[in-house]
Amino acid sequence: MEHQLHIYNTLMRKKELFEPIAPPHVGMYVCGPTVYGDAHLGHARPAVSFDIVFRYLKHLGYKVRYVRNITDVGHLENDADDGEDKIQKKARIEQLEPMEVVKYFTDRYHQNMDALNVLHPSIEPTASGHIIEQIELIKKIVKNGYAYQSNGSLYFDVVKYNKKYNYGKLSGRRIEELKQNTRELAGQVEKKSSFDFALWKKADPKHIMHWPSPWSEGFPGWHLECSAMGRKYLGDTFDIHGGGMDLLFPHHESEIAQANAASSHDPVKYWMHNNMITINGQKMGKSLCNFITLYEVFNGTHALLTQAYNPMTIRFFILQAHYRSTLDFSNDALKAAEKGMARLFDAYHLLNELPVADNATVDVKVFEQKCYEALDDDFNTPVAIAHLFELSKIINQVNIRQQKLTKEDVYFLKYFLKTFLFDILGLQNVEQTDNSEIVVNLMQTILNIRKEAKIKKDFETADHIRNELANIHIVVKDTKEGPKWSFTK
Amino acid sequence: MEHQLHIYNTLMRKKELFEPIAPPHVGMYVCGPTVYGDAHLGHARPAVSFDIVFRYLKHLGYKVRYVRNITDVGHLENDADDGEDKIQKKARIEQLEPMEVVKYFTDRYHQNMDALNVLHPSIEPTASGHIIEQIELIKKIVKNGYAYQSNGSLYFDVVKYNKKYNYGKLSGRRIEELKQNTRELAGQVEKKSSFDFALWKKADPKHIMHWPSPWSEGFPGWHLECSAMGRKYLGDTFDIHGGGMDLLFPHHESEIAQANAASSHDPVKYWMHNNMITINGQKMGKSLCNFITLYEVFNGTHALLTQAYNPMTIRFFILQAHYRSTLDFSNDALKAAEKGMARLFDAYHLLNELPVADNATVDVKVFEQKCYEALDDDFNTPVAIAHLFELSKIINQVNIRQQKLTKEDVYFLKYFLKTFLFDILGLQNVEQTDNSEIVVNLMQTILNIRKEAKIKKDFETADHIRNELANIHIVVKDTKEGPKWSFTK
Repeated sequence: MEHQLHIYNTLMRKKELFEPIAPPHVGMYVCGPTVYGDAHLGHARPAVSFDIVFRYLKHLGYKVRYVRNITDVGHLENDADDGEDKIQKKARIEQLEPMEVVKYFTDRYHQNMDALNVLHPSIEPTASGHIIEQIELIKKIVKNGYAYQSNGSLYFDVVKYNKKYNYGKLSGRRIEELKQNTRELAGQVEKKSSFDFALWKKADPKHIMHWPSPWSEGFPGWHLECSAMGRKYLGDTFDIHGGGMDLLFPHHESEIAQANAASSHDPVKYWMHNNMITINGQKMGKSLCNFITLYEVFNGTHALLTQAYNPMTIRFFILQAHYRSTLDFSNDALKAAEKGMARLFDAYHLLNELPVADNATVDVKVFEQKCYEALDDDFNTPVAIAHLFELSKIINQVNIRQQKLTKEDVYFLKYFLKTFLFDILGLQNVEQTDNSEIVVNLMQTILNIRKEAKIKKDFETADHIRNELANIHIVVKDTKEGPKWSFTK
Repeated sequence: MEHQLHIYNTLMRKKELFEPIAPPHVGMYVCGPTVYGDAHLGHARPAVSFDIVFRYLKHLGYKVRYVRNITDVGHLENDADDGEDKIQKKARIEQLEPMEVVKYFTDRYHQNMDALNVLHPSIEPTASGHIIEQIELIKKIVKNGYAYQSNGSLYFDVVKYNKKYNYGKLSGRRIEELKQNTRELAGQVEKKSSFDFALWKKADPKHIMHWPSPWSEGFPGWHLECSAMGRKYLGDTFDIHGGGMDLLFPHHESEIAQANAASSHDPVKYWMHNNMITINGQKMGKSLCNFITLYEVFNGTHALLTQAYNPMTIRFFILQAHYRSTLDFSNDALKAAEKGMARLFDAYHLLNELPVADNATVDVKVFEQKCYEALDDDFNTPVAIAHLFELSKIINQVNIRQQKLTKEDVYFLKYFLKTFLFDILGLQNVEQTDNSEIVVNLMQTILNIRKEAKIKKDFETADHIRNELANIHIVVKDTKEGPKWSFTK
């Protein structure tokens, strides 16, 4: 089918037809993690949401270069730009070289992402690995007059920039309001305005991470890295920039400002933002004791969790809400997602043993179109999943002969569901590991013994075997084609 | 016990007592992969060899900072310094951004290393991420007069350096011989001597990977990255530098020269080099069609392989030779390693069901000392493994009551073998995944059915069950404590 992919562009505040700058190539940049601690539930959402964008664009035939950075320096402790570097702080506490902290948490982040079946980005650049590129970008901004130096540090001149451009075009904030609402914090005396942001900070003597620059021995500001790495790997203007809504201001707003100040044009055609998550209706925060790391979720070790959740349950749960809606985590909601996903996989497996007829009583091909339409409408995964639930109901009806499908329909459904569940939604069958060759062989052995007991009219043994299996959560159903077994929850 | 760890120091051409510069800290740098293709058997050897060094030093209580780099730029095609960048060449062929190639092969290298159970290094810096550090190091060398500029490129002046220092102190090569044996190659006209090496190369217009520098838009020479990253993360002089013997000259020799030229002292106290591997007695090489990647080994997909080999077989095979000896891969040798490792694990598992006596007929505690002595002697893993084989023979003798051990001996052996096999040698029990909870439960179910058949004197069914299990490679032994089952090979 012809796809008319529409993407909600935060910059335009509306859905727009997706027209890449240089098809079939698509450049996509998504803000990655700051690696000074374990990823939590909040990190799973952008990772999974933009994984769907990456997978779907590739599915549509685009050649996507997906850049997701690692922030390993320059992300300051508070918005006022004068806090301590988060990574360095962690390093001092644990008496580690900052780059040991970076390596440790980067590896753990990758393990979490692999567990969630998030595809690796095409390029995963680090901020510390692109200091030269950041310095070169600052030089352009300085040359164009939008930066000023103060005690060895360089700041972006927001007021001057706003005279020619519009600082606030992405977030909708107006500089007049910013003036009223920004508190003057300690250490900000270097800045002309409280909302000016650092491009380069002079390092104080106790700062471990610093590099030489034309202005001082120091380190780059946080907003700068994404601008520098985005343009290095995707060009001066690229197609998609994604991230969480919490990054919209000041981070992404400042990226736009930096690009215009350096090159007189916007850096990105489509800005995409995923919404936030809540835990039992509350915002996630350290003080509320509801900061749940992904390892804790997967192992069930946080006090708020009543059980461990398979990473695929988390992935499915995230996909059951649209990426621009808020999403509330709770044990009940996760258990419901677990069951829902199992229903879809059960229907998929049922296709292998479905009775077929010469004529169908229901049109299943329409579901492919419905699912594509949902994804073409700003990656609306919950609507696509709702269609898949409806389809699974029909498959179950066919199984109990309330509806009929042809052999061709069944082949179509196998292909369609395999494509949608595994390739596009990126789900994995969580029971796969339990269906290893050895388990299949052992079950065959047991069912053979049971069959022979039945032939010998030893029904006591046959029933006994069935009960023993039920004790270890395996159910045996006798069908016309012989006994079928499956795991129960 | 008191450990007197001795390490063969290539620089001194003898084994020396290991005395770290600032105990309990140990700084170790090992040359990592150039990520322009999949890792092959040759890459497994340094990775596993220095993993043992890392594990054993940590076991002895040292706090080790282990740096293993990723070469993602600057490794030129041939020794003459004027070849094309390997990564860029690959990128052009596949129409990829070089950093996409880097990301792809870095991820695959990590997967291979995880399969071999090689611990992650503490820091894994990239060459492209340390351009500033390399430029700063060159500045020092220039300032001290050991570099000269030529057409925008900078070269290390080996002749001048050799007047004050000794270029050849590590490799034993003499500069007079080098003069006679080095051919003058095309493109070397920029250099004073054919054996001078590039510190910074000016990029020609078609070169994609380049950075600004005081001399030209260009890229650093290969030898430089290890010098720059080693000193950044481990200091001007650190304890151990490792790598393959093929890197001894010119790479490591030049690292020593760069350090002396910059700071007037040697960079490393102990230089360690692992020997090379051969395949069926031949050197590995693309023209001989015996370039076997690790993925091919693990999947058994190379024409020279008669089967797939578990990564643990490869690891065990590497450990069965001393790291400074050559090592020949062949199907027969790998199959022997597979069986040998299985024997060790069988003995380890046998400890759980070993008959115990009040008095022992053999002293097993001596094996701990013997194994430690082997590792203290320049990490002599083959000797340690030979002791473990001897010990496994004794465990089998105890099992058939030809020898006796006390309960205390058995506990000691459990602890000792667990420590040596898993923690120090880094082996994993390859059958672990087959002993999942579900398999254990299914076997219990089957053995229960068999037991009840026996009680009912239905020996036909009991024997039938045993035969069915034998068909799927599970053997059941009836012992005094009840039936025991295990997988057969």
